[in-house]
Amino acid sequence: MPKISVRGEAMPASPIRKLAPLAYEAKDRGIHVYHLNIGQPDLPTPQVALDAIHNIDRKILEYSPSQGYLSLRKKLVNYYKKYDINVTSDDIIITTGGSEAVLFAFLACLNPGDEIIVPEPAYANYMAFAISAGAVIRTIATTIDEGFSLPKVEKFEELINERTRAILICNPNNPTGYLYTRREMNQIRDLVKKYDLYLFSDEVYREFIYTGSPYISACHLEGIQQNVVLIDSVSKRYSECGIRIGALVTKNEEVRKAVMKFCQARLSPPLIGQIVAEASIDTPEEYLRETYDEYVERRKCLIDGLNRIPGVYSPIPMGAFYTVAKLPVDDSEKFCAWCLSEFNYEGETVMLAPASGFYTTPGSGHNEVRIAYVLNKEDLVRALFVLRKALEVYPGRTE
Amino acid sequence: MPKISVRGEAMPASPIRKLAPLAYEAKDRGIHVYHLNIGQPDLPTPQVALDAIHNIDRKILEYSPSQGYLSLRKKLVNYYKKYDINVTSDDIIITTGGSEAVLFAFLACLNPGDEIIVPEPAYANYMAFAISAGAVIRTIATTIDEGFSLPKVEKFEELINERTRAILICNPNNPTGYLYTRREMNQIRDLVKKYDLYLFSDEVYREFIYTGSPYISACHLEGIQQNVVLIDSVSKRYSECGIRIGALVTKNEEVRKAVMKFCQARLSPPLIGQIVAEASIDTPEEYLRETYDEYVERRKCLIDGLNRIPGVYSPIPMGAFYTVAKLPVDDSEKFCAWCLSEFNYEGETVMLAPASGFYTTPGSGHNEVRIAYVLNKEDLVRALFVLRKALEVYPGRTE
Repeated sequence: MPKISVRGEAMPASPIRKLAPLAYEAKDRGIHVYHLNIGQPDLPTPQVALDAIHNIDRKILEYSPSQGYLSLRKKLVNYYKKYDINVTSDDIIITTGGSEAVLFAFLACLNPGDEIIVPEPAYANYMAFAISAGAVIRTIATTIDEGFSLPKVEKFEELINERTRAILICNPNNPTGYLYTRREMNQIRDLVKKYDLYLFSDEVYREFIYTGSPYISACHLEGIQQNVVLIDSVSKRYSECGIRIGALVTKNEEVRKAVMKFCQARLSPPLIGQIVAEASIDTPEEYLRETYDEYVERRKCLIDGLNRIPGVYSPIPMGAFYTVAKLPVDDSEKFCAWCLSEFNYEGETVMLAPASGFYTTPGSGHNEVRIAYVLNKEDLVRALFVLRKALEVYPGRTE
Repeated sequence: MPKISVRGEAMPASPIRKLAPLAYEAKDRGIHVYHLNIGQPDLPTPQVALDAIHNIDRKILEYSPSQGYLSLRKKLVNYYKKYDINVTSDDIIITTGGSEAVLFAFLACLNPGDEIIVPEPAYANYMAFAISAGAVIRTIATTIDEGFSLPKVEKFEELINERTRAILICNPNNPTGYLYTRREMNQIRDLVKKYDLYLFSDEVYREFIYTGSPYISACHLEGIQQNVVLIDSVSKRYSECGIRIGALVTKNEEVRKAVMKFCQARLSPPLIGQIVAEASIDTPEEYLRETYDEYVERRKCLIDGLNRIPGVYSPIPMGAFYTVAKLPVDDSEKFCAWCLSEFNYEGETVMLAPASGFYTTPGSGHNEVRIAYVLNKEDLVRALFVLRKALEVYPGRTE
């Protein structure tokens, strides 16, 4: 029997995925599980998007252009303008989710062995795409005690060597909810310029920024237009993760040409998803405002609630719909598994994402979890209560 | 400005894509172009599939499971049974088109530098996916004069070395329409067994077999169940290329586990596409029969017509909806470009796919083209007439 590949072995199996069977078993025992672990918004997809599906009037569900429909790309141009991101429809390549944009950026820009610097904790799948492309992720630590702010330039420069080819950021950040400041973005710009690096910037949560702080896109940074590759997706902003439509946006024509070869190989992005995405861009402001207000309230409810539980600490996330919190436990992987397999309070428990899956440095985040606030407020309050009860009786409690 | 990757450079730009701008220009000049170059069926998508879209009644277009919906996988189990392919829903992984199935098979099974033996001419994107995965395609020549039948065992064994890890076949074949015989499939089985290779078998055209010859799936071969990875797609059989739903099917649990890690990294296959694909499996037999009958007639019309043009030769394809034909021209790339840029007959011309894009051996297929019969018969007849006229006046005619 032939062996699987080395990278097949090396691909990370996220701790959260190891928990999934425990969650199913808990449900089989009749226990209600509050899912604080997922990034799937619970809010409805905009009606204009759902209507677009019903209005499809095609006889053949045929291939679409490898770059994506021009009509969708043109509408995205106007969408980006609202954020002072000035691009043309030529600069935009429609991808199968933001996921494919990350993979194609890596494949087109990086050689096997090339290194990407990524602040950690980081979205776990960046690691998976790096392994797929044979690239190497070098993480630079950010810490909960410093609110996950960016380390000083010197820390980056310690990591930079002749194989360093890119910096990757997620802004606003998954999993921490951190939003990079102007000073931090300028620091990244200077590094990118000085070492002629790519800057891969995943900005799929730009709609979800809750403080008065400005959103500084990588596309706003001066003098590095040819270095920036923006990763985008409609999944989160319109609660339509399932349609698998994202985008790779860059002013760098060579990169676009190379990415297009990978696009042509996979023929086209999803046809129906593009129709839905295009309609979604016309979502009324009211929907976006209501969604925003809802997340603002949930965030306050979650963060206040977490910080009131003895021994728990969460910084205040400025964006996205996640926070990374520190728990008074020996090992958050164990704690999360225990919540599902051994604990319940009045027939209820919580599922959290152990933060270890977002770090590559061994031991980092061992007492942290990522909590998503994609539950309604009533459920959030109850989930916080159940979490408090769990921490009261967890045998591995540390303080 | 940072450089693009070596693989970005190495990715093939198919000759057909170089022709696309010429086709647009011809249309701009008011010339009607008969597209014999594409693999997009012109037949309507089945009504049950279109109805399924309109019946979608979801409030949230959410992520689906990374392996694909169980309901779709269960229906595929029954579909495969009709072809004596006995698999369980666990053996099936839903992918974003057959394209993703090929890429994930390569990523999960092959290390960089590993070699795959592929009979050429071959689907050009296999090469692209191999480059993406760092694998190396070694082609074994089949020729139009031998009707593209498989070379003897010795020819394969000449290519096998310690880096050889897989054989890849497309059956029925794109671009040749060839269907492997039982003897040929047994030969492949023996090689796979003897050298413990993977057998990647792309069988997306199984509905389109026009002779009395049996369809021998790689899954029918005895003793190599753990070696076979079936690549499948609903695109061609239900004329729904745009929904991007395919499948990777294997009895090899280790391979499935590795592939699933790549699936989890990209989160999920398209949600709406899966709904459409699931409904499509209930397509009435009548649709399939009519589609089949239509292709049978077109094939006869095309092949008879081609072989009546002086200097043209096409073998009779047993399956799919393509044929590779030999033309009396110096260079088929030049001829195809000339048809679009310099020729027209009564305001009409033809677009063909130069076969060089399907060969890796330099010079191979230099006077061959791939012709798809995805036009109605009337248009096919007219296109053949225009092709005859083009060959009569082409300056680079060889005989």
